[in-house]
Amino acid sequence: MDADRVQRRADCSQAQENTDLDRLEKQIDFIRYIDKEKAIKRHTFKTDMERENDAEHAWHMSIMTMLLAEYANEKIDKLRTIEMLLIHDLVEIGAGDTYAYDESAKKTQRERELASADELFEKLPKDQAKFMRELWDEFEAGQTAEARFARTMDNFQPVLLNDATGALAWRENAVKISQILKRNENTAKGSRELWDYEYEKFIKANLKKGNIVNDLGIE
Amino acid sequence: MDADRVQRRADCSQAQENTDLDRLEKQIDFIRYIDKEKAIKRHTFKTDMERENDAEHAWHMSIMTMLLAEYANEKIDKLRTIEMLLIHDLVEIGAGDTYAYDESAKKTQRERELASADELFEKLPKDQAKFMRELWDEFEAGQTAEARFARTMDNFQPVLLNDATGALAWRENAVKISQILKRNENTAKGSRELWDYEYEKFIKANLKKGNIVNDLGIE
Repeated sequence: MDADRVQRRADCSQAQENTDLDRLEKQIDFIRYIDKEKAIKRHTFKTDMERENDAEHAWHMSIMTMLLAEYANEKIDKLRTIEMLLIHDLVEIGAGDTYAYDESAKKTQRERELASADELFEKLPKDQAKFMRELWDEFEAGQTAEARFARTMDNFQPVLLNDATGALAWRENAVKISQILKRNENTAKGSRELWDYEYEKFIKANLKKGNIVNDLGIE
Repeated sequence: MDADRVQRRADCSQAQENTDLDRLEKQIDFIRYIDKEKAIKRHTFKTDMERENDAEHAWHMSIMTMLLAEYANEKIDKLRTIEMLLIHDLVEIGAGDTYAYDESAKKTQRERELASADELFEKLPKDQAKFMRELWDEFEAGQTAEARFARTMDNFQPVLLNDATGALAWRENAVKISQILKRNENTAKGSRELWDYEYEKFIKANLKKGNIVNDLGIE
């Protein structure tokens, strides 16, 4: 090899090394950044009566998927469902948590979350930015078996915790049964069986106890 | 069908229904129980300078696995690795968190965690109890590609957070470089590349800053 080619090869190898390190640096920066999700508080109470945060919520639903996937209406890819649940609230780092029963905040929710997603996923190397964005879009659209089941988990989990904590979040917000049913209008699409259980054991039981405002006069 | 057969069929169908509901009730009880993991505090600080809990830690490492699996020394099954990370600290609900650098607590750690595992996983239906216990045992043994990578994540993630928080947890415990290297003796087994990065960017950088006690006289 002449000196020129040796030099060119050395340059290339340096450039390759920089690219690899750039890729890892971008991934590490992203990983450090999303640590913030642990500080995004939800309205739901945990069984220790502290407010839950987004990271805890995602972790809980991921294990729920491991255990409850057998109740999905359609066969689901467990990995894709769990990945969707792990990342679906990352946009709240930029957009904040929007309470399911805050009608005014919900009006701007989609717009705020889209802006946050545009900024957030761009921090990753291109292929992973695309992968993450597609996962999030899939969850949001709710049109695949995995997204339908993930959304069932996203509705079931806070209702389970509400029931386990004396419905405090419902009571302090005077939540109505009409709101809970609207929020859960797609829960059965992921799992008929889990929706039936949720309705009977958590929702109806708390309605009877007076923990939910019965604006529909349900017997 | 005669009346007898009709009755028998009805009894069977009722028994089947009870079994199915028992199964779901067991799963739901377990899901409600593991909510406690969110209150198990670790020594590591998050970037908001609050202490991290086990659920947040598991969530963080699961997303890290989504992004960093490409650096595994061997090809890994991503789902199994993530499932392992999601559940590997559940035994701490019964056994408490054991700080990586608390030599006295570490002496009883294995015994405490085994007792906790025996009790914990038995709450699940038999097949899922077996699945979960095998996952946890696999993580503990660290003898598969997935367990090796999961353990790399379990070492890498707190070191990343320590670096991001001015090494507060290391400084307040006067942690020595010999302890960190011992704790990380298997980190390279899951990923050579991530260990090199961790050592250069997080450990050596903090050693230079005086945030780690240099009991080995490393230059």
